[in-house]
Amino acid sequence: MFQFAITARNNRARTGIFSTPHGDLITPVFAPVGTQATVKTLTPEHLKDINASLVLSNTYHLYLRPGDELVRDMGGLHKFMQWHGPMLTDSGGFQVFSLAQTRQIDDEGVTFKSHIDGSTHRFTPQRSIRIQENLGADIIMAFDECSDPNDHEYSKLAMERTHRWAEICLKAKRRGDQALFGIVQGGVNPDLRAESARFIASLDTPGIAIGGLSVGETKQEMHDTLDIVTLLLPENKPRYLMGVGTPEDLINGVVRGIDIFDCVLPTRLARHHSAFAPEGRLNLMNATFARDERPIDETCDCYACKTFTRAYIRHLIVAKELLAGTLISIHNLRALIRLMERIRAYIADGTFESRVPELLKQWANNAKRRESVNG
Amino acid sequence: MFQFAITARNNRARTGIFSTPHGDLITPVFAPVGTQATVKTLTPEHLKDINASLVLSNTYHLYLRPGDELVRDMGGLHKFMQWHGPMLTDSGGFQVFSLAQTRQIDDEGVTFKSHIDGSTHRFTPQRSIRIQENLGADIIMAFDECSDPNDHEYSKLAMERTHRWAEICLKAKRRGDQALFGIVQGGVNPDLRAESARFIASLDTPGIAIGGLSVGETKQEMHDTLDIVTLLLPENKPRYLMGVGTPEDLINGVVRGIDIFDCVLPTRLARHHSAFAPEGRLNLMNATFARDERPIDETCDCYACKTFTRAYIRHLIVAKELLAGTLISIHNLRALIRLMERIRAYIADGTFESRVPELLKQWANNAKRRESVNG
Repeated sequence: MFQFAITARNNRARTGIFSTPHGDLITPVFAPVGTQATVKTLTPEHLKDINASLVLSNTYHLYLRPGDELVRDMGGLHKFMQWHGPMLTDSGGFQVFSLAQTRQIDDEGVTFKSHIDGSTHRFTPQRSIRIQENLGADIIMAFDECSDPNDHEYSKLAMERTHRWAEICLKAKRRGDQALFGIVQGGVNPDLRAESARFIASLDTPGIAIGGLSVGETKQEMHDTLDIVTLLLPENKPRYLMGVGTPEDLINGVVRGIDIFDCVLPTRLARHHSAFAPEGRLNLMNATFARDERPIDETCDCYACKTFTRAYIRHLIVAKELLAGTLISIHNLRALIRLMERIRAYIADGTFESRVPELLKQWANNAKRRESVNG
Repeated sequence: MFQFAITARNNRARTGIFSTPHGDLITPVFAPVGTQATVKTLTPEHLKDINASLVLSNTYHLYLRPGDELVRDMGGLHKFMQWHGPMLTDSGGFQVFSLAQTRQIDDEGVTFKSHIDGSTHRFTPQRSIRIQENLGADIIMAFDECSDPNDHEYSKLAMERTHRWAEICLKAKRRGDQALFGIVQGGVNPDLRAESARFIASLDTPGIAIGGLSVGETKQEMHDTLDIVTLLLPENKPRYLMGVGTPEDLINGVVRGIDIFDCVLPTRLARHHSAFAPEGRLNLMNATFARDERPIDETCDCYACKTFTRAYIRHLIVAKELLAGTLISIHNLRALIRLMERIRAYIADGTFESRVPELLKQWANNAKRRESVNG
């Protein structure tokens, strides 16, 4: 369990198989986000149809509602939401810092008020692991602190806390059927990122996550940070770039040796009527689509594209029919999963690196970076 | 086309086959309502899965948005919404009276303001037919006026107008691949209902609709009216009871010789977290379901019941996740379609009439009549 076998490489990019109790992940892989134990507006059948393999859910949300003990008592997250493929939960750390009404951090943990009802709660590394064990995902995360990337002094403090917490999490972990990943932090500070990469790499974990990116830094800073970090990580463990990202970010991440991605972008865009398309992101509410008989993307094999016209989806949006969000979510998720399928095939046949400029050009108009798409 | 073959009878109840250009309807049949060219939150695949056969859509809504000419230019309603089974559109009459902001009725038609943007429009019998021809459903309705059921004087006026308009609609109709049904009106007045039934029966239409029920009258008045009307209608034409109804109404309608029903109740209840179940309607938001590992209905074969627990659906509701509405809609629609499947089997084997008390008892707690579920 949790073996990672690299099957092909293209310079730093690699494709491989990470085995989990709920099936193999073929990497690089993009994970749809099911924050509250549901990928918004989709059934598990839809997820199978788009060839999703890994699904992420959020510990902070599920702890608050319906409660991790309830999920445990209902047989765990897989059974509760009826997704029987691999799952990943985050540690709750990022959400506490971005969503909770108020929070007080100390060396042992974080006390915060729920964004739902203002009630007071406390997360510690041990508690985060216990909650994630109750949820029962295949891949779980060490509790970490994500700091303002440009504040060097505080980033050092948060990084050191993250390192101590990673050790506590490893000791606290009891279940043998979950892979605990440590998280590299350090903001956009090269010295801290190098120190963090070396420390997290030294721990006995089956995989390594990179946190604190796509939180307001520039693209160049993200790329530079990935260059520093991934070169210091062991080759034989999967690397997970948390909360990233746009199609462009996925391509640039794979180039730098990233294996796992997740992001709410495809489903969030869908709720705002925005769809990935060859000619660039389309706002399907636009009147120009009122009589457009083409699918969103003629080259796409998803249910929405094989079945419906832009004109129909535009009508659903204007008429405020929720099916619009379902159909665009199916398409946007399939678009990124299909992109990863192509990337894997290119790595396997040795052409990925040479095709990166072409891939980036194809996705250029879909790659607009949005701030704060982690939530 | 539009042949109606009765295959079995049980006293006044009958089961049969009504052939349409998009397939055969096995009657008695319950039609899900797709007001705006979508059965709310469901894909056409979901409709196939629950064995839906006839789908209704609303002329008033589609005329206003996206416009009947747009639907025509996109290939008609079947192609637009990708439902390739039989479809039915109403005439727009009922919606003008129940939804439009203001309306002025005269002997030639109705002038009204859109409930969407206040713009002024006019429907006449000819216009209603032209719109329905643009939409292209298999079964279309004559333009009618639905009056206050207890106002005898006005009901007579409205009925006479409805009769004149039915004749105009028949003359206006041009397409040979659409079945135009006349509509019996007359409120809850036995003399008017008898007169209307005789008049509409005298027209050359392949089927007959009964309007103006489930609009505020008592159950007894509905049953008495059906008793009067159906006994005066020809045996060889399907009878469609518009906008009805609850499970109890379906059973009581079939007993009185009704063949086609439609109602928004299943999907509207779903949006209010209410599900049909053997023990009576469940409000699935109730805290008693938080740890209930049973499906909504253990005897149900729908995707929601075969896949998810009440606990999970309750979590989706509390977390305001739209998938809840999708799952409950699938179940509620399947429940009524399954009821009709059972009724058809009982009529075929000659046991329906003797089973009516048992059926009514089974559905007693689900049968609460809600006012105004036509919209």
